[in-house]
Amino acid sequence: MKVFVIGANGQIGKHLVNQLHANEQHEVTAMVRKEGQKKELEDRGIPAVLADLEGSISDLESAIKDVDAVVFTAGSGGKTGPDKTLLIDLDGAVKSIEAAKKANVNRFVMVSAFQANNRDSWADSPIKPYMVAKHFADETLVQSGLDYTIVRPGGLQNEPGIGKVLAGENLERGSIPREDVAAVIVEALEAENTYQKGFDLITGVDSIHDAVGKI
Amino acid sequence: MKVFVIGANGQIGKHLVNQLHANEQHEVTAMVRKEGQKKELEDRGIPAVLADLEGSISDLESAIKDVDAVVFTAGSGGKTGPDKTLLIDLDGAVKSIEAAKKANVNRFVMVSAFQANNRDSWADSPIKPYMVAKHFADETLVQSGLDYTIVRPGGLQNEPGIGKVLAGENLERGSIPREDVAAVIVEALEAENTYQKGFDLITGVDSIHDAVGKI
Repeated sequence: MKVFVIGANGQIGKHLVNQLHANEQHEVTAMVRKEGQKKELEDRGIPAVLADLEGSISDLESAIKDVDAVVFTAGSGGKTGPDKTLLIDLDGAVKSIEAAKKANVNRFVMVSAFQANNRDSWADSPIKPYMVAKHFADETLVQSGLDYTIVRPGGLQNEPGIGKVLAGENLERGSIPREDVAAVIVEALEAENTYQKGFDLITGVDSIHDAVGKI
Repeated sequence: MKVFVIGANGQIGKHLVNQLHANEQHEVTAMVRKEGQKKELEDRGIPAVLADLEGSISDLESAIKDVDAVVFTAGSGGKTGPDKTLLIDLDGAVKSIEAAKKANVNRFVMVSAFQANNRDSWADSPIKPYMVAKHFADETLVQSGLDYTIVRPGGLQNEPGIGKVLAGENLERGSIPREDVAAVIVEALEAENTYQKGFDLITGVDSIHDAVGKI
């Protein structure tokens, strides 16, 4: 599969790009914002394109064309304010969905947030504005008609991947290494049983293959 | 019509509550956040309820029940940050839509922003995060199945109403007194030709009755 990664310079995105690049079943294209990031990837033999989630849908469409799948794992991050949460996590995501539709790319994997589908779970969350943004981006994807999968990881860790996860509709809160989130995305890309579905994801007892198979 | 006004203490909201209260065809209930605001309204004979857009959908549903229409004219305002834009202008609006559906209130009038439907128009706007929030609230309303009307006023002024407006799909940017926006909402409430529609609204040459009739 030709996979286009939006947010390729992010913490999950870097793992994902590396894993896809190492995987013979896939070809990856990394979308980044800065020339230096692009050059660093290309020096490693990884195709990269410059595009900006604050730009136009048509620019994103041009970047996306000729791929089979889009993964959205961009995030405005904790260092920026909620204005960027609106512009990147919500509007950037929705523009990516629109661009994928216009480019006739039907497969779309969204990296969301634990229980973003369940408003009651974040009623008193300190990151409630972020959860609102993720929630509405996900809702837009659900309505999009695309073959979507929404991955909702628990607390993200930088530790090396364990390769053991639990994936399901409504899990107890837990955590998971970013490397394992990336591995689940790779596994899910061609798994049609994950189409039109979203799931929480934390460290657990299942192999990644088994966990994705059970979705 | 029994009309429930969300954002009754806002600048458009105050005009709207007063106009509805003075109108023999309508009964108004004002939703406010503070006890003092409630008392001030009740002292003037205007029914008021306490509820908070940052609260639960079920609390909003309880507040809304037994009315015929909901008008959403709340806004987080310019003094708060974009976290409140997400929580009030987007999530508060969507919770209000959900609550109206659950309370079987089919008529919903949304006060939006000029050209909020047209992403290209606010690509470089200094209030782009606000426009994103309004855009997605409006999109949710369009998908809701409710008999909605989305009013998208131009630059809001505190001057007294003129009673002459222009309403249409894609107008040149202009301004309008808040009092006239309120009057258009009152006129539109029972005008079935405005159902399932949104329109820009600025000061113009038509009477409010004629402008609403042409929608």
